Amino acid sequence: MKAVAYVEPMKVEIRDIEYPGLELKDGPGVNPANVGRQCPHGVILRCVSTNICGSDQHMVRGRTTAPAGLILGHEITGEVVEVGRDVEFIKQGDLCSVPFNIACGRCRMCKEGHTGVCLNVNPDRPGSAYGYVDMGGWQGGQAEYVMVPYADWNLLPFPDRDQAMEKILDLTMLSDIFPTGYHGCVTAGVTTGSTVYIAGAGPVGLAAAASAQLLGAAAVIVGDMNAERLAHARSFGCETVDLTENGTLPEKIEQIVGEPVVDAAVDAVGFEARGHGKDAGEAPATVLNSIMEITRAAGKLGIPGLYVTGDPGGVDEAAQEGSLSIRIGLGWAKSHSFTTGQCPVMRYHRQLMNAILRDKVAIAKAVNATTISIDEAPQGYAQFDSGVAQKFVIDPHGLVKA
Amino acid sequence: MKAVAYVEPMKVEIRDIEYPGLELKDGPGVNPANVGRQCPHGVILRCVSTNICGSDQHMVRGRTTAPAGLILGHEITGEVVEVGRDVEFIKQGDLCSVPFNIACGRCRMCKEGHTGVCLNVNPDRPGSAYGYVDMGGWQGGQAEYVMVPYADWNLLPFPDRDQAMEKILDLTMLSDIFPTGYHGCVTAGVTTGSTVYIAGAGPVGLAAAASAQLLGAAAVIVGDMNAERLAHARSFGCETVDLTENGTLPEKIEQIVGEPVVDAAVDAVGFEARGHGKDAGEAPATVLNSIMEITRAAGKLGIPGLYVTGDPGGVDEAAQEGSLSIRIGLGWAKSHSFTTGQCPVMRYHRQLMNAILRDKVAIAKAVNATTISIDEAPQGYAQFDSGVAQKFVIDPHGLVKA
Amino acid sequence: MKAVAYVEPMKVEIRDIEYPGLELKDGPGVNPANVGRQCPHGVILRCVSTNICGSDQHMVRGRTTAPAGLILGHEITGEVVEVGRDVEFIKQGDLCSVPFNIACGRCRMCKEGHTGVCLNVNPDRPGSAYGYVDMGGWQGGQAEYVMVPYADWNLLPFPDRDQAMEKILDLTMLSDIFPTGYHGCVTAGVTTGSTVYIAGAGPVGLAAAASAQLLGAAAVIVGDMNAERLAHARSFGCETVDLTENGTLPEKIEQIVGEPVVDAAVDAVGFEARGHGKDAGEAPATVLNSIMEITRAAGKLGIPGLYVTGDPGGVDEAAQEGSLSIRIGLGWAKSHSFTTGQCPVMRYHRQLMNAILRDKVAIAKAVNATTISIDEAPQGYAQFDSGVAQKFVIDPHGLVKA
Amino acid sequence: MKAVAYVEPMKVEIRDIEYPGLELKDGPGVNPANVGRQCPHGVILRCVSTNICGSDQHMVRGRTTAPAGLILGHEITGEVVEVGRDVEFIKQGDLCSVPFNIACGRCRMCKEGHTGVCLNVNPDRPGSAYGYVDMGGWQGGQAEYVMVPYADWNLLPFPDRDQAMEKILDLTMLSDIFPTGYHGCVTAGVTTGSTVYIAGAGPVGLAAAASAQLLGAAAVIVGDMNAERLAHARSFGCETVDLTENGTLPEKIEQIVGEPVVDAAVDAVGFEARGHGKDAGEAPATVLNSIMEITRAAGKLGIPGLYVTGDPGGVDEAAQEGSLSIRIGLGWAKSHSFTTGQCPVMRYHRQLMNAILRDKVAIAKAVNATTISIDEAPQGYAQFDSGVAQKFVIDPHGLVKA
Repeated sequence: MKAVAYVEPMKVEIRDIEYPGLELKDGPGVNPANVGRQCPHGVILRCVSTNICGSDQHMVRGRTTAPAGLILGHEITGEVVEVGRDVEFIKQGDLCSVPFNIACGRCRMCKEGHTGVCLNVNPDRPGSAYGYVDMGGWQGGQAEYVMVPYADWNLLPFPDRDQAMEKILDLTMLSDIFPTGYHGCVTAGVTTGSTVYIAGAGPVGLAAAASAQLLGAAAVIVGDMNAERLAHARSFGCETVDLTENGTLPEKIEQIVGEPVVDAAVDAVGFEARGHGKDAGEAPATVLNSIMEITRAAGKLGIPGLYVTGDPGGVDEAAQEGSLSIRIGLGWAKSHSFTTGQCPVMRYHRQLMNAILRDKVAIAKAVNATTISIDEAPQGYAQFDSGVAQKFVIDPHGLVKA
Repeated sequence: MKAVAYVEPMKVEIRDIEYPGLELKDGPGVNPANVGRQCPHGVILRCVSTNICGSDQHMVRGRTTAPAGLILGHEITGEVVEVGRDVEFIKQGDLCSVPFNIACGRCRMCKEGHTGVCLNVNPDRPGSAYGYVDMGGWQGGQAEYVMVPYADWNLLPFPDRDQAMEKILDLTMLSDIFPTGYHGCVTAGVTTGSTVYIAGAGPVGLAAAASAQLLGAAAVIVGDMNAERLAHARSFGCETVDLTENGTLPEKIEQIVGEPVVDAAVDAVGFEARGHGKDAGEAPATVLNSIMEITRAAGKLGIPGLYVTGDPGGVDEAAQEGSLSIRIGLGWAKSHSFTTGQCPVMRYHRQLMNAILRDKVAIAKAVNATTISIDEAPQGYAQFDSGVAQKFVIDPHGLVKA
Repeated sequence: MKAVAYVEPMKVEIRDIEYPGLELKDGPGVNPANVGRQCPHGVILRCVSTNICGSDQHMVRGRTTAPAGLILGHEITGEVVEVGRDVEFIKQGDLCSVPFNIACGRCRMCKEGHTGVCLNVNPDRPGSAYGYVDMGGWQGGQAEYVMVPYADWNLLPFPDRDQAMEKILDLTMLSDIFPTGYHGCVTAGVTTGSTVYIAGAGPVGLAAAASAQLLGAAAVIVGDMNAERLAHARSFGCETVDLTENGTLPEKIEQIVGEPVVDAAVDAVGFEARGHGKDAGEAPATVLNSIMEITRAAGKLGIPGLYVTGDPGGVDEAAQEGSLSIRIGLGWAKSHSFTTGQCPVMRYHRQLMNAILRDKVAIAKAVNATTISIDEAPQGYAQFDSGVAQKFVIDPHGLVKA
Repeated sequence: MKAVAYVEPMKVEIRDIEYPGLELKDGPGVNPANVGRQCPHGVILRCVSTNICGSDQHMVRGRTTAPAGLILGHEITGEVVEVGRDVEFIKQGDLCSVPFNIACGRCRMCKEGHTGVCLNVNPDRPGSAYGYVDMGGWQGGQAEYVMVPYADWNLLPFPDRDQAMEKILDLTMLSDIFPTGYHGCVTAGVTTGSTVYIAGAGPVGLAAAASAQLLGAAAVIVGDMNAERLAHARSFGCETVDLTENGTLPEKIEQIVGEPVVDAAVDAVGFEARGHGKDAGEAPATVLNSIMEITRAAGKLGIPGLYVTGDPGGVDEAAQEGSLSIRIGLGWAKSHSFTTGQCPVMRYHRQLMNAILRDKVAIAKAVNATTISIDEAPQGYAQFDSGVAQKFVIDPHGLVKA
């Protein structure tokens, strides 16, 4: 079967790989302790839609230690074609969303709702994902088929297959980006009437903006240096700040909401942030420091944007270990609180599914979902890297277009 | 009347100053916009007990821009001797605890319980305190008398004067240190059965440790490099880690709780942190980075320890502006959340008072409260700076000893 | 000046009464302990809009012990025309919303955000309101002018007068009905993607329905026996259940959401509930019992609908004392939780104001706001009692129409 | 093997029954839809300690529709002796606490932490338990061995077997009574400094009292009509109210805490409540109504005491269907909130285990744990019913005494 493999910095290619079984087999980046792990609790999914994520880009840009040959893909929606013997409630034929965090459903973290840091799926550290470096070695889902372990726990089946296929470009966002944006907003305290600043107009930023609207925010402001993405943000009712233009961020915020601060801010950029202004280079703490500046006292900062513990391409030695120069004194003076980490998708995906199915949110439109075939995946990666205002959805079996 | 004034780095002295009125008068460090502010909503208190705080030490050590002549003191307990015309519920003779945060009780922040960042009392920025640099210029309470504005809102009267005087060394901790330690624990998620690490065995650390016990923590571990303070922590049931000794912090944690992580951690040190090990120099991000290391995934970090926006004595330019090199990548990988800022004392003081009055906590003993006369204040500051395991309580009128 | 007075069951009339001062004067229903209470912390408002509330109807229908001559009205929006000496932040000319709960801003309940049960404004019991029986005797605001005590604490000034006057029919709902409906939803756990049942299509029910939409509910179902009100609910996107029609409520819910239960339910009816079906008589526990039936396990029930401790017209002795036959066994089996009581308006009005000002909600349209002059108030009461799908807004000075 | 069977009202006996397998077999009270259910996810436990619960008494007193022959027992602690093929993390030899609520770990309720109303284990309704009427038919654990389904999800293994056996009389309370009492307190809002009233001095009431102390309550008052149980409550620091004595409950509360109300109240009695006073008969709403009376405004009521949907012995027709005459008007006037339902044990058992293992609570002492052999179970039931101040722990294998 076909799958999308990382080859080297700036290069992915389509490879032919073995059809998956209910076992975690050896391969590039698989943790030795996970090799041979039996998964009678798993299912095999036919991937109906499988998206390219901004965090895949960190690997593809060579900003991680991902090994050559790693099969990419952690934003998966698919149909169950084979069911392990220990699966009791998920049935063959179910069309399901797969949370990108792999979780066992049996450890303390899972029981407490912290499925992003499950203790039993990654021998390296708490937390795991499909097709990602240092995440245990679970094969990625930018492929025709994928194995999903602990299926009764992890999968969210859609209530009606036909209805779901009609909204598949919205529902495909439930595996990561929509809950991630929503989590950013929730942890930032966004609620009815809030003024919100979203740093970054990439897909996660746009999903956060759509989430803020869904949460009843009074004003949703998206900041970026990419004019096309900002234009797209405006297309669904956001206000925008072009960070390449003159003027400070507080000034621009004040022009929009009448004061130089917002109630809540979301970092939808992460560690590859660049400084503000036209020709600014990489400045990894820029976003964190700027959102402290423009968040009001007692405000909260949601930080779904990824920060890593190892970045070979970091601007200096500290950054290469994930240490950034953060204005903690400023945050402290303002009594800020900060929430970091992977979104525990399971906490939100059911309610967001319901909002999609009843037309309360148009998330595909907000992130500009664009379907491509699996063979087009390499171009999709390249275009995404160039900054287009699109979220690429790979359709390995031609089911979405049909 | 007598008051304790900051003179220059490492020097405080007793000065004779004017008896306060219901007006904010000009003086060292008073914000011009606050000069002449009328306070018919205020009261005059006879200071019954008024404590030296670790955050006073930052000023006295010259680590702030505090001006000469600033009257110190924000941990005040006193008896109402004069009542402004607009005070309706507080009565002359009431013995009251004064939250160190000055708050108006009428702005959005106060209405939402964020009294540490009241919008109406400090023209410079949200948040204020008595006798503190950049906090608006409200005169400090290490004095015989002090004016407390918005008295109906701010003051916590004790239900019975005689009962209160018997426990005055406990109740005096309600103005700052006890709620601050408790807030550190609450925001770190400490609850029944938690394992907790408290960084710092100064008074705030010890108050946090006592708070963790009160909250039902299963294990409370205090880390410091001061053997005397650690011994004091052990005296009321804490476990301790001596950071001057060989071995990493995770190893030491593991020896105590059986795993190298705890559920919750509190930074009770702040920006003047030193590196671990015998001869370590100042390393302002040490505490933050080490508590990320030893807090479990999905854990929370309470940061009541003070971080500032300007520190003339900072180890480098970044530190002088309050920017520290923080391992945000590590925190993110562990899905940590962080809560900073002044403790909003009013949120907790009533319930902590009830716990004291019904003998559920022995906070004076935990912080080793030691009464001194106002004339002894300069020695108190010096001794405290030398690292004794004592919390100094100034008794300006000889009422505590009686 | 003119004011609306309760005379006897089913009769209100316009009376000429004295212009208010900054003092609580004696009058019908004034608690003796409140007579002569000085309010230098108060202001006099010119009432710009002042609404008739369903809870006024309980009095007017003779279902309370309200005395003849009581001036009605607790849903007040107005302009400050006189300022007490102790008011510091509210200024003459401010156009403000008045929370219907009168609160001191200085007691434990106020400090904890429970302004609906303030301890200092009603000598009878915690909690107070303007123009309401057993609420301390504060004069009602269905009048040309009204006195508002503790103005700095209670009032919410609109940021821009002209902008506010353009949206005055929306903003007038901030004094009670919109926060009350929103509180019902919040306490019922309504959030993104919830399915919600609102019992009652009167103004509070419609405000709850609009709130549920604002909170991101996937399906909002309103049940009532009044066809006109149900039609109005459908006009802004609600689904409806006509309780006069055949079929059980669970069946009707199932037809709409595919299962016989919802995630959350709100009782917007209260103690004058009638049994379901065409010719049902009063059955005061019907709503409570039916929402337990159709709320899923672990669901929450928000109960903003009023239940009273004394009801002269109750169906039996127990009901006359506020005791109803409630299926607590059913609720217990489903692990339900229940939240009752006055909405603490201050907890929500600012954020709802922001949502109105930025066009995120059309609350006036949802409740069908209809402006009348003060002289038309008696007809307004009569029409409202007849069950029209309208919310009457009295415009004492002709400012709304202008 | 031996097991405790319900025979008829007031009669239980020891029966010899078949050793359990990993299948739900037919038997008295087994739901037909559950017969033959395969449990490869289950384990067989040797019951080390298995307690008699007050809710067993409801069945034994004939106050439910429990069928003859039902094997009792839902408070189980045991050692794993056989492991189903789909169990991955629980190992043979693990000594574990079994939450009394049976939960699948795979449905929406379980994912949201509501394991008391799991959707997949009881065909009748959400929620299940071992050895209980209308709970699906899972065999009770007052037996030598018991089958526990979904073992990876449900079981809490103790970290060290020897340490656990030393504290087994404390740890045995983790299966129900301790978390249930704790849940009652948590949902009542008990926290540091609270004043708390616990209705009922039976084991759940005493466990709630110990929980309130652990949560830092300032005053814990237990009310009952059983002098022996009240004396036992005083033995570990509670204050008590003897409801057979003259005087109203508010008066008695006032004598203890200085005001006639408490911050929080817990109903640890449930539907078999008797009226207050010496010779009062059954009055099922007494407890609910009295705790509304003595809980302050904005207080919360935790209701872990069982209320049922069918009670053949109810005082009237309404009570027989679980409808009680509740003073909802009073609760509403005070803005009370109410939480009902089975305690979701899994939410609390780990942290309470840690508190036990580190000697922060002496729960066995608080409930007066008393070990009996399985043959003594019938006498245990009889004694418990007579009102002794003891919690009976059956020790089927003589392991506890050893």
